[in-house]
Amino acid sequence: MTAIITLTTDLGLADGYVAAMKGVMLGINPEARLIDICHTIKPQNIAQAAFVLSTAYQFFPEGTIHVVVVDPGVGSERRAIILRIAKACFVAPDNGVLSYIIQQFSARPMEVSRQIQLGPELEAVAITKSQFWRSPVSPTFHGRDIFAPVAARLSLGLPPSEFGEVINSLTILPLPHPYQAPDGSIVGHVLHIDSFGNLITDIKSDDLPQQAIIIEVGNQLISGLSRTYAEGRGLLALIGSSGYLEVSLKGGSACASLNAEIGDEIRIKTGR
Amino acid sequence: MTAIITLTTDLGLADGYVAAMKGVMLGINPEARLIDICHTIKPQNIAQAAFVLSTAYQFFPEGTIHVVVVDPGVGSERRAIILRIAKACFVAPDNGVLSYIIQQFSARPMEVSRQIQLGPELEAVAITKSQFWRSPVSPTFHGRDIFAPVAARLSLGLPPSEFGEVINSLTILPLPHPYQAPDGSIVGHVLHIDSFGNLITDIKSDDLPQQAIIIEVGNQLISGLSRTYAEGRGLLALIGSSGYLEVSLKGGSACASLNAEIGDEIRIKTGR
Amino acid sequence: MTAIITLTTDLGLADGYVAAMKGVMLGINPEARLIDICHTIKPQNIAQAAFVLSTAYQFFPEGTIHVVVVDPGVGSERRAIILRIAKACFVAPDNGVLSYIIQQFSARPMEVSRQIQLGPELEAVAITKSQFWRSPVSPTFHGRDIFAPVAARLSLGLPPSEFGEVINSLTILPLPHPYQAPDGSIVGHVLHIDSFGNLITDIKSDDLPQQAIIIEVGNQLISGLSRTYAEGRGLLALIGSSGYLEVSLKGGSACASLNAEIGDEIRIKTGR
Repeated sequence: MTAIITLTTDLGLADGYVAAMKGVMLGINPEARLIDICHTIKPQNIAQAAFVLSTAYQFFPEGTIHVVVVDPGVGSERRAIILRIAKACFVAPDNGVLSYIIQQFSARPMEVSRQIQLGPELEAVAITKSQFWRSPVSPTFHGRDIFAPVAARLSLGLPPSEFGEVINSLTILPLPHPYQAPDGSIVGHVLHIDSFGNLITDIKSDDLPQQAIIIEVGNQLISGLSRTYAEGRGLLALIGSSGYLEVSLKGGSACASLNAEIGDEIRIKTGR
Repeated sequence: MTAIITLTTDLGLADGYVAAMKGVMLGINPEARLIDICHTIKPQNIAQAAFVLSTAYQFFPEGTIHVVVVDPGVGSERRAIILRIAKACFVAPDNGVLSYIIQQFSARPMEVSRQIQLGPELEAVAITKSQFWRSPVSPTFHGRDIFAPVAARLSLGLPPSEFGEVINSLTILPLPHPYQAPDGSIVGHVLHIDSFGNLITDIKSDDLPQQAIIIEVGNQLISGLSRTYAEGRGLLALIGSSGYLEVSLKGGSACASLNAEIGDEIRIKTGR
Repeated sequence: MTAIITLTTDLGLADGYVAAMKGVMLGINPEARLIDICHTIKPQNIAQAAFVLSTAYQFFPEGTIHVVVVDPGVGSERRAIILRIAKACFVAPDNGVLSYIIQQFSARPMEVSRQIQLGPELEAVAITKSQFWRSPVSPTFHGRDIFAPVAARLSLGLPPSEFGEVINSLTILPLPHPYQAPDGSIVGHVLHIDSFGNLITDIKSDDLPQQAIIIEVGNQLISGLSRTYAEGRGLLALIGSSGYLEVSLKGGSACASLNAEIGDEIRIKTGR
């Protein structure tokens, strides 16, 4: 049965781990289309995986199954889950790696909670029925022995509820959100640094004031938004392809130039 | 409809950008076979992308569609184009990234021109009809919103002319070419350095004299051509798998050993 | 004809070499499913490729064809071979890269031999019939011109014996094996270091004594085995997903912390 399964992992490109998962899936569903989202998530960096997945999954056709293996708690008590939304299905550890997907269906802010109750538009299942797993299960590689066979069987049309009991709460990361400072400026944060060195923030275009703005990052000021990377010179700010405000350096890496890190603050002030 | 679409980009392996393009393509043509040529082109390095593409595209079956997203001018006035040759179709920005492909159909030299008139064996179209794009189009990611959907629709059999008006000139990079120096030696250039550290030059085997030759690179001399990397010891020169003269270091990196760079000169002298 | 072909190479991710092989294979069998095992094997590191392949191939469905292109002797007298076992077929240079696969069918130890006689459960063929190759063959890239077309034709159902004469010996690497030291401790070796920095050794769980053990690595002692990476703190030892004893550092890289290298010794002592 033709179905798309994507993979987002921290398993790297130098070992046979990802291929082992693919072999397991093709043994169960020889027609599955296997698409790599990313395998170079920093080891055990759940927040990075959550962000990268969120920028890619929405472009896949309805019914796509997304497997995530960034799993520092593998073999421990952390749950393995299936999450189904209207458009897609996710197979992942319950460690927050689906936070951006869950967040879409929730009221802000979520910084304070670590477990979130699910509304009716989200169906979640704890993967517990071992008859669908490889046997024996390695306690160090559930990606290969649990997630891969479960995803492959989902791709054959088995409903999520076959794999375990329905659950009504999931783990959420404390995602940063922009806020308004007492002086009226908007304070956002660097969520992600891409391979061009662009700083991708948690500020969306409708967080921005209508007036002319000045973007303050590190000790640099950027006046107004550009439309493309090709405009202007030096540091520029624009709304990137995922809808977030980005800071970019023309012909270079904004990250290297600003010595920026994930979590750094970015301030938006109204210009005069 | 089964069709092969290849991807050559500078989007890297650490983000969800490439996967977003693949998701878009599979949404339009679920049967498309998506093959990665390279995603680690140095950011915005058009010449490197042009070379890497040129060494791979010719080995794909007739009808393959090659998408290139190395696009420093994204969102600016640079055109997006489809180029069709007998054997393949290319979807790319009109920034020179197809120079090696176009060059095959042209008389040398092309160092001086930046716009080249196309002969009858080349069909080119400017991609202008927005009904085939994703909507809205991000001004920073035409790869996902224009190139990917256009390539997917080409793979369904839509002819290039459906996507915009026919054009008769394209942008060309000033590609280096070997030339004969006043002393009779042939002067070539390093076009590309591969991941083994081999120096791949613009000299082809029929540029070489029939006599015994000496290859001068940096301050080193290499006597004659080897047939394989396994022969001899130390630095060696041979005709590589793409038909170009290469300089290689047995068991090491010629690039690191010679501190070589793209564009460096290499001289061929006839031996005594 | 749907068939899976995997690729394990040292060709890297920055060139068009791997894609050229894929293009050749799809030209011969448009239905082949091409799965990457690894392309970042260190240049010409046969032992690393042999290990990585051994941890992945067994998870693929019966009939999968595994191509290996780590081939320092390309163009020389080294043979190109097909090896068939019950579950899979391999196309590779005869340079030891299939050592772990062959070893399964042999009595230990094999440290001393370099050529091994094959038993009846292994069918090996020297690839000699050039009518199945691309023409002309580049003496520097048999992966593209010999291995790829041979693998694609195997995937169409052609039997190995069509490609050349049956042979009854193959080249084997001197693989390390754990041994018992005069003081009764077991001495193993680091076989592989994965991208998490885990040290994977040649010690299997049934090499271990029943009693409590102490693992000595560098100047560090680890008491007993953990079951998962999530347990305990600091350095830990466990049986990893391929069945080998691994040394891991919680939240970090055991390799970096211990300054470890392939071949390093690891000692297992019984605890008191």
